[in-house]
Amino acid sequence: MPINTRNARFLIHDVFDFPAHYAALEMANAPEADLLDAILEEAARFSENELRPLNQIGDQQGCRLQEGEVITPQGFAEAYAAYVEGGWPSLIGAARYGGQELPESVALFVEDMTCTANLAWSMYSGLSRGVQEALTAHGGERQKQDFLPPLISGAWTGTMCLTESHAGSDVGLVRTKAQANADGTYVITGTKIFISAGEHDLAENIVHLVLARIDGSPDGTRGISMFVVPKIDLDGTPNNVVCSALEDKMGIHGNATCVMNFDGARGYLVGEPDAGMSYMFTMMNAARLVVGLQGVCLAQASHELAATYAQERVQMRSLNGPSRPDLPADPILVHPDVRRMLLTQKAFVEGGRALVYHVGQLLEIAEHASDDEQRRLADEEADFLTPIVKGFLTEVCFEAVNHGVQIFGGHGYISETGVEQHVRDARITLIYEGTTQIQGLDLLGRKVLMTQGVGLMHVLGRMNALAQELAAHADADLGRFGGQLSTLGEEWATLSMELGSRAGKDANEIGAAAVDYLFYSGYIVLGYLWARMALVACASEVMEAGAKATCRFYFERLLPRIAAHKAAIEAGAGSLMDVSDEAITSGYGA
Amino acid sequence: MPINTRNARFLIHDVFDFPAHYAALEMANAPEADLLDAILEEAARFSENELRPLNQIGDQQGCRLQEGEVITPQGFAEAYAAYVEGGWPSLIGAARYGGQELPESVALFVEDMTCTANLAWSMYSGLSRGVQEALTAHGGERQKQDFLPPLISGAWTGTMCLTESHAGSDVGLVRTKAQANADGTYVITGTKIFISAGEHDLAENIVHLVLARIDGSPDGTRGISMFVVPKIDLDGTPNNVVCSALEDKMGIHGNATCVMNFDGARGYLVGEPDAGMSYMFTMMNAARLVVGLQGVCLAQASHELAATYAQERVQMRSLNGPSRPDLPADPILVHPDVRRMLLTQKAFVEGGRALVYHVGQLLEIAEHASDDEQRRLADEEADFLTPIVKGFLTEVCFEAVNHGVQIFGGHGYISETGVEQHVRDARITLIYEGTTQIQGLDLLGRKVLMTQGVGLMHVLGRMNALAQELAAHADADLGRFGGQLSTLGEEWATLSMELGSRAGKDANEIGAAAVDYLFYSGYIVLGYLWARMALVACASEVMEAGAKATCRFYFERLLPRIAAHKAAIEAGAGSLMDVSDEAITSGYGA
Repeated sequence: MPINTRNARFLIHDVFDFPAHYAALEMANAPEADLLDAILEEAARFSENELRPLNQIGDQQGCRLQEGEVITPQGFAEAYAAYVEGGWPSLIGAARYGGQELPESVALFVEDMTCTANLAWSMYSGLSRGVQEALTAHGGERQKQDFLPPLISGAWTGTMCLTESHAGSDVGLVRTKAQANADGTYVITGTKIFISAGEHDLAENIVHLVLARIDGSPDGTRGISMFVVPKIDLDGTPNNVVCSALEDKMGIHGNATCVMNFDGARGYLVGEPDAGMSYMFTMMNAARLVVGLQGVCLAQASHELAATYAQERVQMRSLNGPSRPDLPADPILVHPDVRRMLLTQKAFVEGGRALVYHVGQLLEIAEHASDDEQRRLADEEADFLTPIVKGFLTEVCFEAVNHGVQIFGGHGYISETGVEQHVRDARITLIYEGTTQIQGLDLLGRKVLMTQGVGLMHVLGRMNALAQELAAHADADLGRFGGQLSTLGEEWATLSMELGSRAGKDANEIGAAAVDYLFYSGYIVLGYLWARMALVACASEVMEAGAKATCRFYFERLLPRIAAHKAAIEAGAGSLMDVSDEAITSGYGA
Repeated sequence: MPINTRNARFLIHDVFDFPAHYAALEMANAPEADLLDAILEEAARFSENELRPLNQIGDQQGCRLQEGEVITPQGFAEAYAAYVEGGWPSLIGAARYGGQELPESVALFVEDMTCTANLAWSMYSGLSRGVQEALTAHGGERQKQDFLPPLISGAWTGTMCLTESHAGSDVGLVRTKAQANADGTYVITGTKIFISAGEHDLAENIVHLVLARIDGSPDGTRGISMFVVPKIDLDGTPNNVVCSALEDKMGIHGNATCVMNFDGARGYLVGEPDAGMSYMFTMMNAARLVVGLQGVCLAQASHELAATYAQERVQMRSLNGPSRPDLPADPILVHPDVRRMLLTQKAFVEGGRALVYHVGQLLEIAEHASDDEQRRLADEEADFLTPIVKGFLTEVCFEAVNHGVQIFGGHGYISETGVEQHVRDARITLIYEGTTQIQGLDLLGRKVLMTQGVGLMHVLGRMNALAQELAAHADADLGRFGGQLSTLGEEWATLSMELGSRAGKDANEIGAAAVDYLFYSGYIVLGYLWARMALVACASEVMEAGAKATCRFYFERLLPRIAAHKAAIEAGAGSLMDVSDEAITSGYGA
């Protein structure tokens, strides 16, 4: 079944008008509407023809490690060659290093297609983009000349090497060491784990971005530096970096999750010593946006299969009497709860994609707008929304892929149908690039309380403007959505302020509320976007019924979940912190 | 880590007083308290030593099909031999067929231990118990003499063959045929799928209970009969039944999920022709109780690992300052959200186990009480609670096993740690023996609306009695729980009546509300049980802090979820049914 670009086009043109956005930013090679559609369709075709057929093969075969070499699943290397041949890796790279210098959001649209077709495969190319962006932002000119051209052409791929076995969420515990050589290079020694695409047979070289501590640097996050460590060094000799093991894991089997040993490898310092963490943080927004998108993509893939199945599978009669008396039973799409599950998938997929594209647009404004104030506002809003994209979307999309399995019933548990793979693949999106818990703390602690809620205020401003527009609309449903948004905005602001006041007395109140606050905020943001989409659809008469009906479903059946999260937030930290460790752990273990 | 029987013992003795319950029912071989504990401890030891070590092996190796024979994972057959040697299969069988004739609930307690250690393995023995119970209830004396002794001794195992590729939730579509022979036996022809333990190397013979349609019987559920079809016929010759394929599936790899071809196999009619569905339904309560228990067991296994890990893993500092300055970071148990996830697991595991044991007790009263009225009441309450056990507990326990992965972070996604297997294994419990959707319809349609809520009334009666006792209690927390229960009881009754009135006008209102009503009811039932446990714990001073603290957590952080479900129920069917099929499916597929 071809990847459906209908929703992406609705968002790109009707909701967010990317062509006008590019024009306003006066971006150099900004594609006009027709070209943008052509790129999108070509990406959908490539993903459908080259990547989707490898998705289940990748899951079944996984990767193998043979004498330090990783063999990827059958067809992965050929598909990557076709991807390079098609010029896809160079979309957004700077022209002076061989790139096409298209807007970053174009790469996001393309990644939407590749991830929907094959998440495990798309991680090989996706990580390279992250490395390109990091070197572009923080590398010296010499480093750029050395590393960017082959990364942009796709001849080389890249990785991010952060995690160590004892340093996951807590990156400050990193022990990998860097010792300076006389020539300005460094000797890197340590072991990194969970390195996606750390070793493979897709490209002739792999560029590792490694976080390590220079001898004598302080403990914790302040003493961490970033290094480029190529698998094959610039002089063509193999570097002392090897993949010593592959992880056996729940999903994304087609992507090699490597233990990487740096055994005195030559590394090149990126930017300034001890500034590695701040460089990581500038890359983080883009990386977390992609992970949120991955959740959306898997939910979309699941929805495609489940929606088709619900029309073909006949089982039991409608409670109101047979809808298809010519068949032995009715298509399961007649059953209200099957419809509920499909609509839930659709609401999260299309609402989630809207959020990802909106933040993608904000990041471009924050980067390229000529006006300082406009850049600042966009940056603050993107900062605020990013943990929601990463934390909330991956959680609700995990719910969505589970609905896909449930719609297939027993057949959904069987690998052949493909929907259980979505669940296994999606499970990692709640963990990597910062767990849901880390996102919750980032949202509430850093983005709301530490900044007095500047980003939240921008979103509330948007909500209020939309609420007024909706309230004035002739359509009664839209008016109702507007009224609800208006009330919710006030409630959200009040709740956030109350939390700030409680957090001032006890910091554990932040941790106790963080994940519920993440969900609470996420549901409201998606409500805003659904109302906005319903309004646009009504105005343009594009798929009006679909967007308005899904918006109604969202407001009536999903948005009320905020009541549970609000109650949990208001309950405070007491029930979590006033209980003994022993009572929680039931005396197991230590 | 040994299986912890502390919670089971608290429930068996302090909360539900099973020894007194057995005595009241004047059950023949009812074990006294000491013997019951001895059986429990021995089951825990056996499960720990023999079954737990095979859990990951079973997942990794899976089952293989070689020339019609299924080879189970290494050690499974030996463990089964030890299980037979230990006399475990014969616990509850009738003495006249070689059983120990212990109360059925004893088998439930034992299954609690075996499932916690190894779900895939425990399904081989668990299904045999179901077949024993079906033949005991509905088989003729000759059939009992032929089949029960080897099933009870464990020499043979059993299966249930219901599902066909086109007949899952809709059993009435079954096409497997039965033609009468002159000697009263039948010729069974058809293909059954998803047959757990359909073929294996654990026992010398396998007894299939097969649903099939006798030539000339009516279509639908009224024309379905039940047959016993042994793999090796009673005369020692192989029957025409073979496993033609094994399913490749998400989890429970250690259990063989078989496609079974009945190609003119000899079958023996159980009970009356065309009565197969009613026989299935009498077995259903017990089978669904076990699946609910399976969810609880996997969540317990996950909680054991996660609770241990949370004490050992150090990562980041407490938001209120270092709790372990001697370590490079604090144990993650200090973080409020880790505590929230562990408490959520504990609340569902221990509350869920309480619900399973309570229903197990009701089923024994319904079967064995001398008083007709007492039997009827227990039967009605068990009928009402069973879809909650199966539908609600498996859903919330699926949430719980996902928390286990999340607590492990990236390490949780790696197979080695074991927690991701719990997620894959648990996923089937939401599907088999009737999906969550089927349970929702059963609860709201059959158990509430069709019976005018008799079962609900019994539960409300219990809740009110407890609420009054709590309200009068000196402990302020308990008083508060009592007040909430009292309010919730009224709300639940009102909501149910309103639903009945809406369903009278539009049957789709049932389907639209069913799953949310299942969750809504489940959360309240668990609230009742937690308050009851807190009261018992206070009274007996047994682990008071643990039970009361978890109860408080449950009331403050989990029970408020009912608000979301209530709002979804009250929103009605409109947003599901007033939307076009095309809008729901986004034009994918047909």
